Amino acid sequence: MKLKLKTVFVLYFMVSLLGLIYALMQLGKWSAQSGRGKLEVTKQPQKQPAKPSLSTIFVITPTYARLVQKAELTRLAQTFLHVPHLHWIVVEDSPHKTPLVTDLLLKSGLTYTHLHIPTAMDRKLQEGDPSWLKPRGVEQRNEGLRWLREDRRAQPGGDDQQGVVYFADDDNTYSLQLFEEMRSTQRVSVWPVGLVGGMKYERPVVEGGKVVRFHTGWRPSRPFPMDMAGFAVSLKLVLSNPEACFDGEAPMGFLESSFLQGLVTMEELEPKADNCSKVLVWHTRTEKPKMKREEALQAQGLGSDPAVEV
Amino acid sequence: MKLKLKTVFVLYFMVSLLGLIYALMQLGKWSAQSGRGKLEVTKQPQKQPAKPSLSTIFVITPTYARLVQKAELTRLAQTFLHVPHLHWIVVEDSPHKTPLVTDLLLKSGLTYTHLHIPTAMDRKLQEGDPSWLKPRGVEQRNEGLRWLREDRRAQPGGDDQQGVVYFADDDNTYSLQLFEEMRSTQRVSVWPVGLVGGMKYERPVVEGGKVVRFHTGWRPSRPFPMDMAGFAVSLKLVLSNPEACFDGEAPMGFLESSFLQGLVTMEELEPKADNCSKVLVWHTRTEKPKMKREEALQAQGLGSDPAVEV
Repeated sequence: MKLKLKTVFVLYFMVSLLGLIYALMQLGKWSAQSGRGKLEVTKQPQKQPAKPSLSTIFVITPTYARLVQKAELTRLAQTFLHVPHLHWIVVEDSPHKTPLVTDLLLKSGLTYTHLHIPTAMDRKLQEGDPSWLKPRGVEQRNEGLRWLREDRRAQPGGDDQQGVVYFADDDNTYSLQLFEEMRSTQRVSVWPVGLVGGMKYERPVVEGGKVVRFHTGWRPSRPFPMDMAGFAVSLKLVLSNPEACFDGEAPMGFLESSFLQGLVTMEELEPKADNCSKVLVWHTRTEKPKMKREEALQAQGLGSDPAVEV
Repeated sequence: MKLKLKTVFVLYFMVSLLGLIYALMQLGKWSAQSGRGKLEVTKQPQKQPAKPSLSTIFVITPTYARLVQKAELTRLAQTFLHVPHLHWIVVEDSPHKTPLVTDLLLKSGLTYTHLHIPTAMDRKLQEGDPSWLKPRGVEQRNEGLRWLREDRRAQPGGDDQQGVVYFADDDNTYSLQLFEEMRSTQRVSVWPVGLVGGMKYERPVVEGGKVVRFHTGWRPSRPFPMDMAGFAVSLKLVLSNPEACFDGEAPMGFLESSFLQGLVTMEELEPKADNCSKVLVWHTRTEKPKMKREEALQAQGLGSDPAVEV
């Protein structure tokens, strides 16, 4: 009886010890899980659970002060806020960062970099010039590229970093699907652009999965007769071609070609948006608002308060 | 020794039993917590945890077929997707629902109602008419109001329902803050509108928390010299005034007044946006795209594929 009781006691002790160890292990797991759960909840403002495998899309947006600037940047920021892993590089055509853009970016909820560089006087469009006379945003896009190369060099991975670079002007309209299409860019991906070049759309024409020519209303013989909104470039390609940039002296309509022709051939272009059959971005332009009544009231000292930001 | 061992055994048994019970209770708690965690994660597409106390904002948007329609509705939907408890009432100026709008709404991720009503021929703007000649969207806004009254009547609460009604044209630009400002509307709330009426902004002038006059460049003597984008009305007021609607025959600039003057007095207006000192909505207008090259190519049988939706 003595021995039996001792055996039972020892067995019971060992079993309960195992149970205790198991319970402690479970406890460890649970608290780790509950920690993870909390992390996901605080990430809700980003709308998506973190997917570390997603390439970051670096969007370079040149912008300049004008009456509709805040409105345009406001709705563009709202679009980008839906896109996970997007880094907005905003480059002002200005000798300094303006309070309007600084404040807007600060409140945007986006990951961003704020840069500025003024366009050289002789390259700037003058009041009354037709908008096609000189390309706008050249120095600003190049400044965006310069920053990106410098910043990425400082990151681990050197030239071999996942990422996509897209040039998004502040007046166009972008569907959310566009960003998912461009995210898998290997070298240069392409797609149609709506309402551009006096056409319903311009697009690369795809046969057998390859771009064979371009549907455009003007000089289809240009190396890359595409709008700025119609392509994205992989970060790797941008980093491994440190000299590639936009040539402000390129003839009209050749700005996109001046950047792309050293990077890729037509055959290498990667068609997106269902073989370039879907329009996912539109070259919308916002009217310049008339200020006739404002000027009349200002002449009477009754104009709008300049302290109110519009 | 016999007794001692037995006592130890019994004590040990009781202590470990208590431990087991405690462990089982904790297990129950944890699994409940982890279940809650999962629920929150699946609600992420809605961006906000449900706040049942938030008033629903019913946004009535008249729209009509044109080249930039899909672009405009695309970016507007992206704005609204950030706003919790928003119900979009889209009313097409058309004898039937178009596939373009039907499909866009279906894919929008928004709570919406899709309506249509064609503008009577004699009230319709003709090609080449200046846009101010006849007000656009009158029948469509009234159809939105009609639907809203009919639908809400069928809900519990009758005329006493929380909610806000806002008329949002498809070309304007709306900050997200605007919707939080209007959500607390008791009767009629008001705020500035940027880039409207030939002015930097138009706005109600507030003194001592009350609207005392209006800053506008044209006929400030109108009952409510405000743009459609500059006010919101409580659902209760819309339901308890079943006859209130927009008068398409009202003289130019009196459309907003024709709706508001039976509902509210100037003294009753609720100023929002920091006593009407902040511009949170802009009357942007999108340029009509030129189709010169499209027409030239079409004449050669080389036009854009009409099957591609733009």
